[in-house]
Amino acid sequence: MFKEEFNRKIETVSLALEKYFEKADNYQKTIYDAMAYSLFAGGKRIRPVLALACAELFDSGEKVLPFACSLEMIHTYSLIHDDLPCMDNDDLRRGKPTNHKVYGEAMAVLAGDALLTKAFEISVKFSELSPEQTLREIEVLATAGGTEGMIGGQVIDIESEGKRVDAKTLDALHLNKTGALIIAAAKLGAIAGGASEDDIKNLSEYAKNLGLAFQIKDDILDVEGDSDILGKMTGVDEINEKTTFVSLYGLEKSKQMLDEYTKKAKANLKPYGKKAEFLEELADYLLKRKN
Amino acid sequence: MFKEEFNRKIETVSLALEKYFEKADNYQKTIYDAMAYSLFAGGKRIRPVLALACAELFDSGEKVLPFACSLEMIHTYSLIHDDLPCMDNDDLRRGKPTNHKVYGEAMAVLAGDALLTKAFEISVKFSELSPEQTLREIEVLATAGGTEGMIGGQVIDIESEGKRVDAKTLDALHLNKTGALIIAAAKLGAIAGGASEDDIKNLSEYAKNLGLAFQIKDDILDVEGDSDILGKMTGVDEINEKTTFVSLYGLEKSKQMLDEYTKKAKANLKPYGKKAEFLEELADYLLKRKN
Repeated sequence: MFKEEFNRKIETVSLALEKYFEKADNYQKTIYDAMAYSLFAGGKRIRPVLALACAELFDSGEKVLPFACSLEMIHTYSLIHDDLPCMDNDDLRRGKPTNHKVYGEAMAVLAGDALLTKAFEISVKFSELSPEQTLREIEVLATAGGTEGMIGGQVIDIESEGKRVDAKTLDALHLNKTGALIIAAAKLGAIAGGASEDDIKNLSEYAKNLGLAFQIKDDILDVEGDSDILGKMTGVDEINEKTTFVSLYGLEKSKQMLDEYTKKAKANLKPYGKKAEFLEELADYLLKRKN
Repeated sequence: MFKEEFNRKIETVSLALEKYFEKADNYQKTIYDAMAYSLFAGGKRIRPVLALACAELFDSGEKVLPFACSLEMIHTYSLIHDDLPCMDNDDLRRGKPTNHKVYGEAMAVLAGDALLTKAFEISVKFSELSPEQTLREIEVLATAGGTEGMIGGQVIDIESEGKRVDAKTLDALHLNKTGALIIAAAKLGAIAGGASEDDIKNLSEYAKNLGLAFQIKDDILDVEGDSDILGKMTGVDEINEKTTFVSLYGLEKSKQMLDEYTKKAKANLKPYGKKAEFLEELADYLLKRKN
């Protein structure tokens, strides 16, 4: 049941992405190819699905789609830039060669820039929300993707390399680097659904816990996961001397924390009862995932 | 008189940039330093000054400032990414070491990403226009900076390297790579000033001609300019086997074209009479500039 509902939502998001991501003419063919290569590379679509599910708590959910897709574009651009030789220097992503391996570094930089720019373009062009709500969605996207969000987290990440960092810094790193866009997903959905300020806050809290659980699971998978299923190498964090939840707390304690954050996330959903079933199951799904 | 007015406008823009570009906390210090390094590196501020001057044709002009500054941030991010080793591999910009030479490549990529994201953040946060007008400004920024604008031009540029390109491609390259943001400046100003659709179109046409003249002048300076005054090496286009207006048409014909586009730009200003004096003199100033 959950898996079917998840797939239905992924399908809804994919159709929207294809609709918003229009064709290119002659001159822009290469850049559109490079953008599409990463945008349609089989990502799990967790952020836009989360946005859609949060919006559906309040209405049909459809109106969040341009912003859910924008968020996925921002997530995708960050992966392209993250994989660059001057950043993480990754050759593989989701089992496929990374963007710069296929299109070259210059085009990969531009494809990332273009996806980030396109996110704001489609937010304006395809919004069916009121101008006021649309601007609020755009502010959520820009803040979550920027220096006080994802990019801020990447900076902490770069500056922590090869160092032992403390628990507070590790939390700040992940709350920003991965957490910011996951929290933004919940906010985008709630705002598009016309939720109250209390509901927006409550769902942001759910997403914050979900995001931390997600990151802890990632760190555990890097130690215990199967690289064939993951589509990327394991043991990378140790080689790169990265401080992770596992290196800081150990494997057992990390698994315990994963359970706790998942429980906290589910507790945030209490006010929505049966309607929040999908969001509850999403937390369990992310807890148990193998990739 | 013109120079004083130009400096007054630069000052207005600089004060606004400093206001919108707020302080960073602990974690984000490095990225804000990297962003500020390029944003306050002594750029000529032609785009935001143009936006301000176009807005002033219709009203006080103040309301365009958040968008004029956003445009300057987009311009600045594009220079940081353009200078990267995988792109133009430039060590100097405006006589100073390029961003990645000072902060490293990873931070330079992120500083560019952050400036692009910040552009949209401040557009929402500091707008004093109506929500509808604000959205229109954001759409102008995103379209001009994206695949159908500046990035599209950069793609043509990369794909033309080491090739002889024809006049049509060279026009498309520059109309997008440098033209798109200059045209956007005029549009942002006109929209913020509450101009009619005819005036928006007319000022866009002025900016289009100004942008082509600007690029031709750039190509001429690369051949005839003084590298000390320019703050960068000359003769680079020939070394890189780049097709330029000079390589395609020769120096004399290029100078003639520069004159013609400048005249055309000034003709577009006829309807505004004396009020457009600054914009007229701006065209002459760009024609005669030495850097």
